[in-house]
Amino acid sequence: MKDLLTGPSGLGTSAARLGRPEAVTLPPEPGYAERPWGDGTAPPLYVPVLEREDALLAAAVDERLVAWAGECGFEEPERFLGGMFGRLAVLTHVDTDDVDQLLIAARLNAAWWAADDLYADDTEMGAVPTELPPRLALAMAAMDPVAPAAEFTVDLEERIASDPVLAGLRSGIAHLTSRSTATVVQRVCYSTFAMFVSWGAYAAWRHTGNYPPAWQYLATRQHDTFYTSMTLIDAVGGYELPAPLYYDPRVRQLLTAAGTASVMVNDLVSVEKDAADEQPVCNMVLQIAADRECSIAEATARTVELHNQLVRDFEAGHKALLAVPSVELHRFLKGTKAWMGGGFEWHTTHPRYK
Amino acid sequence: MKDLLTGPSGLGTSAARLGRPEAVTLPPEPGYAERPWGDGTAPPLYVPVLEREDALLAAAVDERLVAWAGECGFEEPERFLGGMFGRLAVLTHVDTDDVDQLLIAARLNAAWWAADDLYADDTEMGAVPTELPPRLALAMAAMDPVAPAAEFTVDLEERIASDPVLAGLRSGIAHLTSRSTATVVQRVCYSTFAMFVSWGAYAAWRHTGNYPPAWQYLATRQHDTFYTSMTLIDAVGGYELPAPLYYDPRVRQLLTAAGTASVMVNDLVSVEKDAADEQPVCNMVLQIAADRECSIAEATARTVELHNQLVRDFEAGHKALLAVPSVELHRFLKGTKAWMGGGFEWHTTHPRYK
Repeated sequence: MKDLLTGPSGLGTSAARLGRPEAVTLPPEPGYAERPWGDGTAPPLYVPVLEREDALLAAAVDERLVAWAGECGFEEPERFLGGMFGRLAVLTHVDTDDVDQLLIAARLNAAWWAADDLYADDTEMGAVPTELPPRLALAMAAMDPVAPAAEFTVDLEERIASDPVLAGLRSGIAHLTSRSTATVVQRVCYSTFAMFVSWGAYAAWRHTGNYPPAWQYLATRQHDTFYTSMTLIDAVGGYELPAPLYYDPRVRQLLTAAGTASVMVNDLVSVEKDAADEQPVCNMVLQIAADRECSIAEATARTVELHNQLVRDFEAGHKALLAVPSVELHRFLKGTKAWMGGGFEWHTTHPRYK
Repeated sequence: MKDLLTGPSGLGTSAARLGRPEAVTLPPEPGYAERPWGDGTAPPLYVPVLEREDALLAAAVDERLVAWAGECGFEEPERFLGGMFGRLAVLTHVDTDDVDQLLIAARLNAAWWAADDLYADDTEMGAVPTELPPRLALAMAAMDPVAPAAEFTVDLEERIASDPVLAGLRSGIAHLTSRSTATVVQRVCYSTFAMFVSWGAYAAWRHTGNYPPAWQYLATRQHDTFYTSMTLIDAVGGYELPAPLYYDPRVRQLLTAAGTASVMVNDLVSVEKDAADEQPVCNMVLQIAADRECSIAEATARTVELHNQLVRDFEAGHKALLAVPSVELHRFLKGTKAWMGGGFEWHTTHPRYK
C-alpha cells in the first residue's frame, strides 16, 4: 500500500496533479551518535554522524588547491597543505560536489590555517607574539579593502602581494566574492577579525607566561571557533541565508554552540601537542586541569561533557527552529550539523592531530 | 510666482491633490567648506558644514549619560565623561532630538572611549600593552554573547558585572538592541572588533618600540576609525539601512572614506599630545614625518591633503549613489555627511584636543 501511494504512477501522483500534498518517503535524516576517539579511554563524544567521505573528490579539490597555493607564493605547497583542506571541505560541506564551490572552503581554511601557523602559533615557522598584532592588522587590510589612500595604498598593495599569507587571504576572499554576496563576504571577514582578537590574547598569554583560568580562556576561545569556517556554509552550497535570519539571536546562539563544540574537539585531540610546546598553547583541557589541580583525564572528561552538552543544545535548538518558515534557514542548520559531523571525522583521523 | 506655486494654498497643493508632482522649494542642502583649525597656520580642512549645535539638548543627554555611567560602576562619572559625549551625539546625529535615541550613540561612544583610555592608551589610567589583548577578548564577550557554557559562563558574567568598561559596553549594546535589529547590533559589534585588532597592533608597536611606516600605520588605522561610530547612524535615526545595501562595496568604500577622513582630523589635532607621551602614540603626522624626515608642518600638510581628498571622494560618491532608489541609503549617506561635519566641530573645539 505504501508503495502504491508513493510510487511514481500511484495515487500520490494523482494527488499531486490535483494540487494535494503528496505522501513521500524521505530517507531517514542522519542522526547523532556517541563516538569513541583518541585511544578510547576518554568518554565518547556525542556528534552528528558523518554524511560523506569521498577521497576522489577530496583529491580533485587538493590538486587545484596546491596549484593555487603556489600562485599565492607558498613554498612547497604540497608539504605545506599536506592534503588537509580538500578532505576537510568534502567532509564538512556535503551539499555540493562542485570543485569550484568546495574551493571556497578549501582556500579560506588553508589561508586561515596558514595565518595561524605562520603568524600566531608555530615559533619554528616564524611566529613571534609581539609581531602578531601588526600582521593581523595587515591581514584585515588584505581581506577587507577600504577607501583608497593615494601613495599609502600603493605601499600596502606591494606588501600584500609579497606575503603568501596575505595574498592567500585576499585570493580566498576574491573567490568567495565571485560566488556569493557582499553581505556574506563581510560576514566572513568580520568573523575572521573576531578570531584575530582572540589570537592576540593567546599571544599575550604566551608572551607573559600568565595563563588564564579556564572560564577566561573559553570566553576568548568562543570567538575563535569553527563558527568562522561555518560562515561559508551557504556560500559553498550556492545559496544565501539572509542577514536578518543569520544574525537572529536564536540562530546565532545555535551556530556559536556548533562552532564551540567543534573547536572543543580540536582542543581535545591537541592536548599532548599543546602541552609539549616550550611555550604551552592554551587548551581547554590544560586550563581546567590547572584551575582544578586535577588530572588530564578528569579535565578531559569535563571538556567532553561540555562538548556533548553544546551538541545537545544545538540538536534541540535546531528542532525548535524548524518552525521558522525559511528554506535557507533549514538548509543552513542542516549544513551546520553536517559540518560538525565532518569536523569530528577530520580531527580524529588526520595525522596532524595524532 | 515661486511663492504661489509652493505656498500651502498655492497651485502646488492642487497639483499634489491631483496626484501630479508638486514643485517644492527645499532649503538648500548644507554644503562643504574649507575651515581653518588649530592655530590657523596649517592648510584648511575641507569638511561638510555643521548642521546642528544645541547645548541644551547636549546637556539633557549628558545628564542621563552621567547617571548611566555611575550605574556601570565608573568612578567620578562626571569628571570621566567631561561633557564630551552628549555634545558629540548632538553634533553628529542631527536627524533626531530624542534623548533616548541620542543615548544610543552617547553610551556606546563613551564605552568605546573608556575601553580605549583605560585598556589601551593611557598608562596613568591602567593601560598595559600586554594586558590589552585579553581585555579586548573579554570586551567581545561582553558585547556579543555566544552559546552558554555552564559554570564557565557564570564566572564570565561575574567578571563582566564587576568591570565598568565591560558593563558599559554590554549596557550600551543592550540599549541599541532595544531600538534596532539584530543585524545592526552585529554590524556594530563586528566593526568594534576590527578596531580591537588595530588597537592590538598599536600596543605591540609601543611595547617593542618598533614604530611602523606611515602606509602600515594608515592601513591599520583604516580599520579603527569613526566608521564604527557611524555604524549607529540609522539606529539613532530610527530606521535601518538593510545589509545588502550597507555592505555594498560602493557604499562601504564611501563609509570607510568618511570614517578615515574623520579620524585623520583626530590625528591632526592630537599631534602634540601623542608626541609628548613617554611611549609615543602612533599618529599619521608623526609617522609621515619619521618616514620622510620632514618637518611636522610638512607632514601636517600631507595629512590635510589626504583628508581633503577622502572628503572629496565621499562627496563625489555620495552624488553618484543618489541614483540608487533607496530612501534609507540616501538618508544614511546624508547622515554620514552630517557626522563628518559634527565630528570636525567636536574635535576642533573640545578641550581634550587643545
